[in-house]
Amino acid sequence: MNMKAPRGTQDLLPGTTEKWQYVEAKFKDLCNRFNYSEIRTPIFEHTELFQRGVGDTTDIVQKEMYTFTDRGDRSLTLRPEGTASVVRAFVENKLFGLPSQPTKLFYFGPMFRYERPQQGRMRQFVQFGIEALGSADPAIDAEVISLAMSGYQELGLRSLKLVINSLGDSESRTNHRNALISHFEPHKEELCGDCQLRLEKNPLRILDCKKDSNHPAMETAPSILEYLNDESKLYFEAVKIHLDQMGIAYVVDKNLVRGLDYYNHTAFEIMSEAEGFGAITTLSGGGRYNGLVEDLGGPETPGIGFALSVERLLMALEAEGIELPLNNKLDCYFVALGEKASSEAVRLTYELRKAGIQVDKDYQDKKFKAQFKSADRLNAKYVLVLGDDEIENKIVNVKDMNSGEQEEVAFEQLVSYLQEVLRGGK
Amino acid sequence: MNMKAPRGTQDLLPGTTEKWQYVEAKFKDLCNRFNYSEIRTPIFEHTELFQRGVGDTTDIVQKEMYTFTDRGDRSLTLRPEGTASVVRAFVENKLFGLPSQPTKLFYFGPMFRYERPQQGRMRQFVQFGIEALGSADPAIDAEVISLAMSGYQELGLRSLKLVINSLGDSESRTNHRNALISHFEPHKEELCGDCQLRLEKNPLRILDCKKDSNHPAMETAPSILEYLNDESKLYFEAVKIHLDQMGIAYVVDKNLVRGLDYYNHTAFEIMSEAEGFGAITTLSGGGRYNGLVEDLGGPETPGIGFALSVERLLMALEAEGIELPLNNKLDCYFVALGEKASSEAVRLTYELRKAGIQVDKDYQDKKFKAQFKSADRLNAKYVLVLGDDEIENKIVNVKDMNSGEQEEVAFEQLVSYLQEVLRGGK
Repeated sequence: MNMKAPRGTQDLLPGTTEKWQYVEAKFKDLCNRFNYSEIRTPIFEHTELFQRGVGDTTDIVQKEMYTFTDRGDRSLTLRPEGTASVVRAFVENKLFGLPSQPTKLFYFGPMFRYERPQQGRMRQFVQFGIEALGSADPAIDAEVISLAMSGYQELGLRSLKLVINSLGDSESRTNHRNALISHFEPHKEELCGDCQLRLEKNPLRILDCKKDSNHPAMETAPSILEYLNDESKLYFEAVKIHLDQMGIAYVVDKNLVRGLDYYNHTAFEIMSEAEGFGAITTLSGGGRYNGLVEDLGGPETPGIGFALSVERLLMALEAEGIELPLNNKLDCYFVALGEKASSEAVRLTYELRKAGIQVDKDYQDKKFKAQFKSADRLNAKYVLVLGDDEIENKIVNVKDMNSGEQEEVAFEQLVSYLQEVLRGGK
Repeated sequence: MNMKAPRGTQDLLPGTTEKWQYVEAKFKDLCNRFNYSEIRTPIFEHTELFQRGVGDTTDIVQKEMYTFTDRGDRSLTLRPEGTASVVRAFVENKLFGLPSQPTKLFYFGPMFRYERPQQGRMRQFVQFGIEALGSADPAIDAEVISLAMSGYQELGLRSLKLVINSLGDSESRTNHRNALISHFEPHKEELCGDCQLRLEKNPLRILDCKKDSNHPAMETAPSILEYLNDESKLYFEAVKIHLDQMGIAYVVDKNLVRGLDYYNHTAFEIMSEAEGFGAITTLSGGGRYNGLVEDLGGPETPGIGFALSVERLLMALEAEGIELPLNNKLDCYFVALGEKASSEAVRLTYELRKAGIQVDKDYQDKKFKAQFKSADRLNAKYVLVLGDDEIENKIVNVKDMNSGEQEEVAFEQLVSYLQEVLRGGK
C-alpha cells in the first residue's frame, strides 16, 4: 500500500501554510493596488492548448507534461504554466470585447511538470502570475516588472537582480534567427542532440541550452540586440526609460531568451543573489507575447505577463533570514473543571466565536492542569476558567496570561469584556 | 483545434472571483476563530489511497475518478474529495505525535469527479472542508456542525436545514447490516444492478440509491437508530444536547447514510430550502470516521469532518437574493494629456501604488475624454489630471468624482493627500 504523497509533491502543514497565506495576501493586495483582477482557470486543459500555446519544441511540451485520457477519450493535460490557460480563457470568454481594456488579470495556483525533483523544483508547484492583455504601451511592460519587484521588496528581499532583454518583433527575430543558423551551422556536429534539432526548429533556444552552455560558439553567437529593427529598439528604450524613472535597477543580458516559444520584445527574469540560495537562482520571469492571442484563435491583441514560483520565493526569504510577521497566538482558551462546566464551556465557546473571538477548548477529557498546559502550548492570551463555583455564580474567571491578573466576568458580559481587552492589544 | 475549457470545468472571471475571494475569506476567518489551521495536500494522489480511503464500492471510486499513469508508471488519481488526502498527510507527517491534540485542519481546493455535468455539479469543483483528528468527544461533533452552520449564516443564508443521524459504532453497524440484508434479500430481483451488488458488499448504501428510492421496501427498511447499542445512543444524545444548548436547530433523518464508506456515529447534511434552488439541495455534509486513520496506516485515532461545495454555496446565495458586500470602486485613475504628462503619470502611479494606494492609468494611448470615460467605467473615486501646465508646476489636479470638487496638489504632497482623503472614506 503506497500511502505517501506522490513523488515530487508535498503536503503543506500548519506552521508552513501561514507563510503561504501571508505571501498570497501580499500579492493579492499588490494586485489590488495595481488594479489586476483574479482569474481562475481549470487545473487541466485540452492537451492541444499547451502544444500550441507553450510550443511544440519546448522541453515542457516534449518531456514534462502530465497528459492523460479521460473517460470520454479526451486528451487532457495538467497545466504546466498559467499563460496559455489565461489566454485561452480570454479568447473563449471574449474578454477582448469588454469596454475596459487592457484586461489585467492575476492568478494563483498549482502547476505540474514531470521533472527530476530537487530543491526548489517540485512536480507540483505553485505559481502566482499576472497577464496584461490589450496594450502595446512600453509603460505596461514597466508596470508588470514593477509589480514583480514591489512584491519581493515589500516582503523584505534585498538581494535581487533584475535582468532584462528584448527579443524584438517578428522581423527582428527572423533576421536574428537566420544569423544564428549561419553561426551555429558549422558547429552542428559538436552540439547536443537537442540543439541539433533546435538549429532547425528554433535556434534561439540553443542559447538557453544547459548542456552546450560552455561551447565556444555560444559566447560569440550573434546577439538579438544587434538585429533589433528601429521599432523594436525604440520600444526597448522606452521600457528602460520607464524603469529608470521608477528607480528600478536592472541589467541588460543579451543572452536572456526564456524557455517558452511565445515571447517577443521585452523579456525579463528576477534572480536572488542571496548567499546559499542554491543552484537555481531564478525567482520569476516573464515577457511580452504579442501574437499568442491570435495563435489561440482570438483577435490581434498584444500581451505581457510574468509568473513567480511561491516555493522559490519562500526559499529566498529563508536564505535572507527574513521572518514573516505571523501571528502565533490564540486569543482565548477555556479551562473547565467537571462535567457541567465542560458542557457550559462548549456553549460559551460557540457564543464567543460567533462574536468574532478566537477561542478553543479541550476535547480530550483532560485534567485541569493538562488543560492549562494546552493553553500554554497554544500561546493563549487569556485563559477562561470555569468550575463548579463559577457555574453557580454564572461567571468566568478570566486570566490574562501576560500580566497574570485575574478577573471575574459575568457570562453575559464575557463577549464585550473580551472584545475590549483584545482590542486593547493587551 | 479545441480551444475551450474541458467539459465540466469553468473559468472564473473578474466579477465572479471577487465572490469566491469573499466566501474564502469568510471561512478562513471562521477557521481562525475556531482554531483550525490550513493544510494543503497535492492535487493528485496514488490511486490506492482513494480505493482504500473512500471505499472500493462507492460510485466515486468505481465510476468517477480521473485516474492516469504518470511517466514513471505510477497510477495517480486527481483527488475526488479531501478527507482521504488529509488523513494520509496526517499519518505520513506523523501529526498525531504533536503535543497539541486534536489536530484541527481546514482545506480549500479543487476536487475532480467525472460525472454528467449539470447545474451545481461540475467535474472540477471546489470544496472547503475541515477535519478534527484525535478526539472522540461529542462536543467536537457539535463544533464541526456549528462551524458549518455559522459560515452559511454569517454569509446571510436563512433557508437552511440541518439534518443529522447516527450510523453507530461498528457493533451497531454490523447488527444493522444483517437486518438490512434480511430485509432486502426477498426483494433482490426487483432492485437495480448496483443495489444487488450493494446487498452483498455494503447494504447500507441501498438506502442512498437514486434509482430504487421509490421501491416500497425502502420505506420499511430497518433504521440504524433501532440498532444503536447503548454507547452509540449515548454518544448521539450528547451531540444533540450540545446542539440544543448552542441553539442550532436540526432534524433527525434515519435515512441519512452519506455516500462514502468511512462514516460512523454522527452523520449530517445541510440543505438549502430556498425556492428555485434546484434539484440538488445538499449544500454540504460530513460525519465521523473513527477507524479511517488506522485504515490508512496510522494509529487508532477518532476523526470527524465536513466539506462544502463553494459552487453550491454561491448558488444558494443567489437563490436567496443575497448580495455580498463587494467593493467595486477604484481609488484613483490618472488622466494624462501629452507625452510628458503620460510619462510622468507612469512614475507617479508607481509611487502611489508603493504607498498602498490603488491607482490605474491608460495604457492604450487614449485621448483626454476617453481617459475620463475609463475612469468612470472603473468607478474611480478620484481622477488625477496631469497636463502640460501641471507638469510645469509639478502639481496634480485631483478631482473628487463624488462631489465634483477639484484641488491642486503638489507632486510631493500627493501620497499624503490621497491617503488622507481615502482614509476619510470620501
